[in-house]
Amino acid sequence: SLQLMSCQYANGAKPSPAAAPERLPFSRVTPEDVAFFRKILPGRTITDPDLLESNNVDWLKSVRGSSEVLLRPQTTEDVSQILKYCNSRNLAVNPQGGNTGLVGGSVPVYDEIILSTALMNNILTFDSISGILTCQAGCVLENLSLYLEERDYIMPLDLGAKGSCHIGGNVATNAGGLRLLRYGSLRGTVLGLEAVLADGQVLNCLAKLRKDNTGYDLKQLFIGSEGTLGVITAVSILCPRKPKSVNVVFLGCETFEQLLKTFQLCKGMLGEILSAYEFLDSECMRLLNTHLKLPNPISDCPFYVVIETSGSDPTHDGEKLHNFLDEAMTSSLVTDGTVATEDSKIKALWSMRERVTEALTHDGFTYKYDISLPVERIYQLVTDMREHLGDRAKSVVGYGHVGDGNLHLNVTSPTKDPALLAAIEPFVYEWTASCHGSISAEHGLGLKKRNYIYYSKPSQAVALMGNIKAMLDPKGILNPYKTLPDDLK
Amino acid sequence: SLQLMSCQYANGAKPSPAAAPERLPFSRVTPEDVAFFRKILPGRTITDPDLLESNNVDWLKSVRGSSEVLLRPQTTEDVSQILKYCNSRNLAVNPQGGNTGLVGGSVPVYDEIILSTALMNNILTFDSISGILTCQAGCVLENLSLYLEERDYIMPLDLGAKGSCHIGGNVATNAGGLRLLRYGSLRGTVLGLEAVLADGQVLNCLAKLRKDNTGYDLKQLFIGSEGTLGVITAVSILCPRKPKSVNVVFLGCETFEQLLKTFQLCKGMLGEILSAYEFLDSECMRLLNTHLKLPNPISDCPFYVVIETSGSDPTHDGEKLHNFLDEAMTSSLVTDGTVATEDSKIKALWSMRERVTEALTHDGFTYKYDISLPVERIYQLVTDMREHLGDRAKSVVGYGHVGDGNLHLNVTSPTKDPALLAAIEPFVYEWTASCHGSISAEHGLGLKKRNYIYYSKPSQAVALMGNIKAMLDPKGILNPYKTLPDDLK
Repeated sequence: SLQLMSCQYANGAKPSPAAAPERLPFSRVTPEDVAFFRKILPGRTITDPDLLESNNVDWLKSVRGSSEVLLRPQTTEDVSQILKYCNSRNLAVNPQGGNTGLVGGSVPVYDEIILSTALMNNILTFDSISGILTCQAGCVLENLSLYLEERDYIMPLDLGAKGSCHIGGNVATNAGGLRLLRYGSLRGTVLGLEAVLADGQVLNCLAKLRKDNTGYDLKQLFIGSEGTLGVITAVSILCPRKPKSVNVVFLGCETFEQLLKTFQLCKGMLGEILSAYEFLDSECMRLLNTHLKLPNPISDCPFYVVIETSGSDPTHDGEKLHNFLDEAMTSSLVTDGTVATEDSKIKALWSMRERVTEALTHDGFTYKYDISLPVERIYQLVTDMREHLGDRAKSVVGYGHVGDGNLHLNVTSPTKDPALLAAIEPFVYEWTASCHGSISAEHGLGLKKRNYIYYSKPSQAVALMGNIKAMLDPKGILNPYKTLPDDLK
Repeated sequence: SLQLMSCQYANGAKPSPAAAPERLPFSRVTPEDVAFFRKILPGRTITDPDLLESNNVDWLKSVRGSSEVLLRPQTTEDVSQILKYCNSRNLAVNPQGGNTGLVGGSVPVYDEIILSTALMNNILTFDSISGILTCQAGCVLENLSLYLEERDYIMPLDLGAKGSCHIGGNVATNAGGLRLLRYGSLRGTVLGLEAVLADGQVLNCLAKLRKDNTGYDLKQLFIGSEGTLGVITAVSILCPRKPKSVNVVFLGCETFEQLLKTFQLCKGMLGEILSAYEFLDSECMRLLNTHLKLPNPISDCPFYVVIETSGSDPTHDGEKLHNFLDEAMTSSLVTDGTVATEDSKIKALWSMRERVTEALTHDGFTYKYDISLPVERIYQLVTDMREHLGDRAKSVVGYGHVGDGNLHLNVTSPTKDPALLAAIEPFVYEWTASCHGSISAEHGLGLKKRNYIYYSKPSQAVALMGNIKAMLDPKGILNPYKTLPDDLK
């Protein structure tokens, strides 16, 4: 609750956004260590600084580590040997998937050894009756999607980074994405998981069953723990049937209130075929036009909505969509719109939503916030932030997953600007806490947001998280400086 | 894996099904303790043995405790005070909801104090835009359903015991039920939870957000932990819209293979409107006819299927169902069937599936198994068991959730029969482990199944569960003798 949040920071000890954590007393990598790694991972122990460069920097180029060793295991046994050794030597380890994270969780902070899942990319089994897929953690999401689509199934999650992100990283960060509204979160769709613990012990919870109530559900500990409790090496996941019919519409609304009314109408009239309800504001559209030369597919509006339907009967889906659009237009909830049923136009409309992140990178240095709020409040935060910042910000834009109450609020500036940052934070977090929202809906906490956890979680909960960390990784070698706040360490 | 399972029990130390656990050295309740409870719970501290009788015995009348104190808290603060006191006094506590559990988890084993959630039955909030409900743990599932239906929503779970079971108990046992196929498990639909820990500390994770990735998801520890890690006092849950159209069909199939082919056909043709695919065998039908005088709604068949559709457009749903039935009949997958669209007939058809449990109680002493398997194997276990037991059993019946790969295997006998039990177990568990199945799909482990956990979980996983228990409840006062195997204690 807000009271707890205020309490926690009441003594003036508010975390400084710029504060880097102090390096913890882990061992430094020695030539003997490298020799050991070369023995167990011949040709897959990388020490060339040029080759390491891209693994040391995050996708946004916002944080940079200085690791001198990159390990590329192929098997669970490789990972087990690596961690057993690192734990005994007190060497810190940064588990890394596709390195597409947005909170600095996927790169080293200091000289942590990088353990990449890139070569762990085998599909293990697929059961075409149940739709249950098992695969190694390093499989790229898009490759899994292509594999499944050939077999009349789809992945239950989809996100902009699909071409690079690894399924293990998706699970480790509890990625949300574009299909959550329809297929639910990974906490429901991940059926099993194999993880290697800090001491090298392999924990096999790789069940391929839809239901299993034999004891505590240990796999949930690893989902969303950002590599701090264990290294996920394989997952099993429940995949939905590939829809026979997909439609996408792109609509414009005059106000956010109309956009919400359109959402309610759409939940009622599209019902079970609704698979996404996403939005972007006119500022996003301006950046898409300016930086990516993507033309607006409809007339200019303050708000835009992408609605996707997925169903089993093209005629029925078309009728439902037609009836909904008819009602939305007649009641003046939407002012303009366009519909796509063929693949290329569907992709084009989706890119208006998916490429906002990319457009932002061209607009300047970007301060990114991923906020969960009661759905009726989500745009108020953008409006308030815009007013609060005035002309100190270059652009203040809002987009995201309306269906999940998840706002992506982004503020750009020509260059990194500590004064601007000080105006944004803690304003954004206090605003969110006052609505009992989450300061990280789907991106996780990583390095950048770790110290803000108390805005969304009471101190007892954070203390318990610390106990869990201490139980599973007593030396703290796994992804140090991430997820948990500094005051716990 | 099977190898691990075999290993675990290889030294001849197979658990004896009949073995009761030894009483652990908890304190006995003193008159001073009762006086304390009467002070904090005036009129809600029950010691009359007659009033305690029904709380000491499970619904199946298969296990009986000897508690002398029943506490009926109304608030989270009450529960906190109770546990703080019990923990300091080393008094064991049995948290109890509707007492509808099937594995002896919901009643005391010895003289544990019963902490009933029966008076914690307030709905706290309901947001009609997001469909998020928060309520106290003691709300009866059916009451929540009625509350929501008036507001155009439904609960994401439904089960036979709905008239008695408490939502807190549902969450504590991770109940599955009849709608899981459509709306997923409680691990996805429970958004937040408040629990009181063994030492009386209140853990507030009662978020009302669809997405929240700020740290480890602590609520998952309590979902499915059967009251052994904390007492759930409130939950928030994501509720689906009430469907505008519901249809139920009751079909007959000649073979289980045809029943599975019908399932595949139905997943393709009914797609997103399929909300249940349940089965019962002809032995179940015989018991329904004999003991409950429920007539077969169609002609005699070896297998029966209940299919439910829920959708937003009655015309579309009707067309999809018609096309599916047409195809299923034409291709001779089903031999007979009947369709219901009006409420009373829907209820009548559903009762053929829901009342099998009740019919079994009239057939004699029932040995119950709740098994998860790859769906194509589920009936083989019934056939093998029937053959294995020969005429030692009165009835061997199979029914359950085909869509989830979840078989309810039940064996009856005129009276309790240790020789029969010895023939069933460990046969049923070994058979399940050989298919990498779960020996408890949705019922949990409770008292009765605790020692069989190794058939479905490797020993490292069980050891880790033990560490979690020790961390959260160091004195082990919460629901002792349940969930975790005796060899951990």
